[in-house]
Amino acid sequence: MTADSPARRPADPAVRDLFEEMRRWPIFDPHSHIDPRRPAARNLDEVLGYHYYTELAHSSGMPAEAVAPELAPRARSENLARHLAAIDNTVQHSWLIEIARTFHAFPHDRIGPETVGGLYDAALRDGEAAGAAWDEQVWERSNLEAVFLTNEFDDPLEGWDVDRYVPCLRTDDLVLKLHEPRTVERLKAATGVDVGDGAGLREAVVKLFERFVARGARACAISLPPDFEPRRATPRRAVTPVRRAIRGLDLRPDEHAEIRATVFWMLAECCAEFRLPFDLMIGPIRNVYPAGVAGGRDLFDRRVSLYGYRELFNHFAGVTFPVSTLSPDAGAELVAYSWIFPNVLPMGHWWYSNVPAFIAADLAARLQAVPKVKLLGYYSDAYKLEFILPKFDMYRRILAETLAEQGIVGQRWSPDRALEVAKLILVDNPRRVFPHRAR
Amino acid sequence: MTADSPARRPADPAVRDLFEEMRRWPIFDPHSHIDPRRPAARNLDEVLGYHYYTELAHSSGMPAEAVAPELAPRARSENLARHLAAIDNTVQHSWLIEIARTFHAFPHDRIGPETVGGLYDAALRDGEAAGAAWDEQVWERSNLEAVFLTNEFDDPLEGWDVDRYVPCLRTDDLVLKLHEPRTVERLKAATGVDVGDGAGLREAVVKLFERFVARGARACAISLPPDFEPRRATPRRAVTPVRRAIRGLDLRPDEHAEIRATVFWMLAECCAEFRLPFDLMIGPIRNVYPAGVAGGRDLFDRRVSLYGYRELFNHFAGVTFPVSTLSPDAGAELVAYSWIFPNVLPMGHWWYSNVPAFIAADLAARLQAVPKVKLLGYYSDAYKLEFILPKFDMYRRILAETLAEQGIVGQRWSPDRALEVAKLILVDNPRRVFPHRAR
Amino acid sequence: MTADSPARRPADPAVRDLFEEMRRWPIFDPHSHIDPRRPAARNLDEVLGYHYYTELAHSSGMPAEAVAPELAPRARSENLARHLAAIDNTVQHSWLIEIARTFHAFPHDRIGPETVGGLYDAALRDGEAAGAAWDEQVWERSNLEAVFLTNEFDDPLEGWDVDRYVPCLRTDDLVLKLHEPRTVERLKAATGVDVGDGAGLREAVVKLFERFVARGARACAISLPPDFEPRRATPRRAVTPVRRAIRGLDLRPDEHAEIRATVFWMLAECCAEFRLPFDLMIGPIRNVYPAGVAGGRDLFDRRVSLYGYRELFNHFAGVTFPVSTLSPDAGAELVAYSWIFPNVLPMGHWWYSNVPAFIAADLAARLQAVPKVKLLGYYSDAYKLEFILPKFDMYRRILAETLAEQGIVGQRWSPDRALEVAKLILVDNPRRVFPHRAR
Repeated sequence: MTADSPARRPADPAVRDLFEEMRRWPIFDPHSHIDPRRPAARNLDEVLGYHYYTELAHSSGMPAEAVAPELAPRARSENLARHLAAIDNTVQHSWLIEIARTFHAFPHDRIGPETVGGLYDAALRDGEAAGAAWDEQVWERSNLEAVFLTNEFDDPLEGWDVDRYVPCLRTDDLVLKLHEPRTVERLKAATGVDVGDGAGLREAVVKLFERFVARGARACAISLPPDFEPRRATPRRAVTPVRRAIRGLDLRPDEHAEIRATVFWMLAECCAEFRLPFDLMIGPIRNVYPAGVAGGRDLFDRRVSLYGYRELFNHFAGVTFPVSTLSPDAGAELVAYSWIFPNVLPMGHWWYSNVPAFIAADLAARLQAVPKVKLLGYYSDAYKLEFILPKFDMYRRILAETLAEQGIVGQRWSPDRALEVAKLILVDNPRRVFPHRAR
Repeated sequence: MTADSPARRPADPAVRDLFEEMRRWPIFDPHSHIDPRRPAARNLDEVLGYHYYTELAHSSGMPAEAVAPELAPRARSENLARHLAAIDNTVQHSWLIEIARTFHAFPHDRIGPETVGGLYDAALRDGEAAGAAWDEQVWERSNLEAVFLTNEFDDPLEGWDVDRYVPCLRTDDLVLKLHEPRTVERLKAATGVDVGDGAGLREAVVKLFERFVARGARACAISLPPDFEPRRATPRRAVTPVRRAIRGLDLRPDEHAEIRATVFWMLAECCAEFRLPFDLMIGPIRNVYPAGVAGGRDLFDRRVSLYGYRELFNHFAGVTFPVSTLSPDAGAELVAYSWIFPNVLPMGHWWYSNVPAFIAADLAARLQAVPKVKLLGYYSDAYKLEFILPKFDMYRRILAETLAEQGIVGQRWSPDRALEVAKLILVDNPRRVFPHRAR
Repeated sequence: MTADSPARRPADPAVRDLFEEMRRWPIFDPHSHIDPRRPAARNLDEVLGYHYYTELAHSSGMPAEAVAPELAPRARSENLARHLAAIDNTVQHSWLIEIARTFHAFPHDRIGPETVGGLYDAALRDGEAAGAAWDEQVWERSNLEAVFLTNEFDDPLEGWDVDRYVPCLRTDDLVLKLHEPRTVERLKAATGVDVGDGAGLREAVVKLFERFVARGARACAISLPPDFEPRRATPRRAVTPVRRAIRGLDLRPDEHAEIRATVFWMLAECCAEFRLPFDLMIGPIRNVYPAGVAGGRDLFDRRVSLYGYRELFNHFAGVTFPVSTLSPDAGAELVAYSWIFPNVLPMGHWWYSNVPAFIAADLAARLQAVPKVKLLGYYSDAYKLEFILPKFDMYRRILAETLAEQGIVGQRWSPDRALEVAKLILVDNPRRVFPHRAR
């Protein structure tokens, strides 16, 4: 069963038919930040606390303190609601309204100081039983099939149904923060390996993969800054830097680079060995705006190219690399690399590129130039379950429009042929590319 | 009262309604090169002399000498008219036809050798009184409210109504040409400060800001090459280079860079102190094609990123930075930076990006991802008053189309809600972001 | 007479009318890889062997060996047909279906294992007479006027009608591979000059131009990697590197760069002297994916700018440079450079940019901002004659849509005025820019 949101059905009948059919399919969401122990929001603050709202409100004038963690949830929601009018043109705001209307019977099309109280009450789920029931209701109403998580390498991976909430090994810390003492400590604790040098590091990383795969992990993932260029590791050269990093000693910039390259390559080798797809999320630079709200401080440098990844793609021909690029203008290059490299797959529309104008441009080109069996349509990147439906609906609307215009009108495809492509992109390809490995 | 140009009303009724309503609003133009003492054109040569026509005609085969300054105005117009057929597909040509039809009752839809004479006669305004009356007529007919100027730092700022023609301190010469003796001379003459070192320079710059603000200036502006990266000034390191520059001595490249950084940072400090927005116009490289016509020699290198401006945006949290980027493919990055940094506002569509295809793409993304209160819709960049109306009409048509498609059809907004956004973008935001400071 | 492909006529009547009229005009194709001695395909393998199909099929999972050269043509076709379903969403697949339907009366809209046999039979042209008759038939049915070739510098240029199949001097090897012994040997053999140093090289290159022009060549062409930046040659500095290259001695990277710059500049000088346009095809990096199928191994680095070509464009004001850029996101910069430099002309939509979504975006901007007399609409880049018609039809559809929307609806142009622009772009400009020089 899918949600009913009559206000946002596409106006064009051909588009609407495609959209309605797509909404009957289950949602397979190959990347999110959902907490599987508390997947749906317990109150409105957990919805409004999504960094899109706090950062856009802050960008339009709200002080960061208005949503400080020490405030009561209701106060934070009220503070934020006073600034929602300033951002009610954005697509992010439209997700919010769809959540309010779909899940909480909110009757208005904007949320303001005078309506936030009622909505807060309607969205409140107090106590564990009410929370669990709500998780189930949102899951059903959104027609979810699988939601991938973002698990730190030392996540115990216990306490939830891994067929619904699929583990995914996130490896940023290992590659980018090995020199921080906390990382090595966590690694030792998680694996029981007394990591002291490169060999110990490898042993520990293999243990991580074993544990994740045994617990049903179906992908490894990492986000990488725009100046990172993977290169074949030269273990001998890395011996000393890796040992120094593990011991928390000071490192020169070239040693940092050597460590990153070495650990990253090691991860790729494990992906090959354990037959896990390796999601590459290319582009972010962390903390570009340090005074921003939590989650709203990262940006990018648009001067980035997949050319820097050629050695990786060539060397690991057996590893599937679902690739997301952050800078919207980098999307066209990803089309070309996905068209040539069998193991490069364009995946979703990420963060600053997750805007209808950019999605539409990227999607049109992917549909025209990348084999349909390689297209991984969309992922929610959501922190709370409620966001999956409106985000996927946004994508499904654009997909319906694109297929109607390009396929049905442009190429004289039948609606069934258009839906065949849509089904691959939304459901069949993700299922095939991220298969069950364990058990 | 607005101009009547029935030929260019949008065909779609919903779009037309939005457009017609927008045309009832006054035009607030936050960046132009208008000469406030001779704002409207005294003859057709001052219209056809706009660099867009001379450079496009030259690009299509007209020798630069055909529009040499030593020729008589009528001869220049006749020469140019012989080449207009070659560029009558361009959007720039469409502005010209709209001027001819709106302001001079020109009945044709192209201007050629056989019609240019009559148009020249119709556009001629001989004598001071006729000129002044014409300025008034164009102002009224275009329904202008405020037109920002581009004033050199030593502009006396006397002789016009600064509520209509708003002073704006243009600072390219100070940052990029401090080493040229002429710049320091002009600075001394304009401020009475005997500039001899960094301290004297600062004193003089403060004097400039005082004078500009006292005379009603509402912005500081600068255009910067793509490789410029602002950084926090290190006054001690700059002491010697700045002194050497002021004395006209030879400078090493690193000294040039130090001076640019120092002066630029000083200007930003003054913007903070005097509470002036600092317009950043990022991208142009001057004189890339030296054999071109006047105004038609500059281009850019598309490898540019706002990442280089992070230190500036962070440090001057209290300064508003309306940003324009020159390279059309840099527009998507500006959306992301405006979405995160409260003090970064996307402003207009500049020069090589001021083309409907680029405007439409940028505008759609801005409307979807940047808070509406931060959008500074458009500026004319015009040298003569007549151009403001057709340029704003071009933008208003695209805005109407975008709002109709995205807002009314896509989001089920009412026309009033769409107009609310348009009003902010076109009128209310510019008024608020560029407030009166003086008197 | 033009081909009949009723299934792909545009649905919108205004667009269809423009399209139908354009299809009555002859096709002038200023860049292809046609073999003038065997222009049309002798069997289906020569169609399916086009690198677009082998590389897309390989990208979607087909092993490169499935289309190995040692296989029988029919076996290769059958192997490939098993993978066509995976790519039947692509625009490249649509060309294939149009070829099958237009030239071989194929009744289906997809080609698969069960239909490939019949199609293979239908497309087979055994023996020289049948082949020659087929060449003629495809030429007539496609309504071709001129097809430019890509001729290696030592091509004998004998054995075909150079008014139909126009020679074009391709110079990649001279610039990028002078250090390979084979190149110098070929050069000596082709010119009879005992090339031993820079002077000898120049003598030989002039001989090449003389021979090509005498045989009807109408362009010189080269493809250049993204990091190449032409600069004025400094013959003295190049003396030793050039001599060392000619003798096959080892070269330092800076010597390689010196040689490339020197030879490239020499070619530009010859283009000036012989009044040949110099086609610049900017962007590819060869062999980025070495394990790919033949023709499917090259990619690019999107960080490229025409700013690197400023010295060339300025110095050779008398040489026409038709420019193609490979990276789709570089298209907007080309618009600006074509708008300013009289000798820079945007040419076609190349390879990874030859995708409707990218073509439409580039074309809209070119039509809005580049003088219409400078637009070189399209070229096929084809290896077999059959591809010219469907590729040009794809472009003509997009051109019709763009002119209808921008010109007829947006600017209230009459259909005749829109067709006037189309005629220039498709036929008149290419004829004028690439004129007959010889005889």
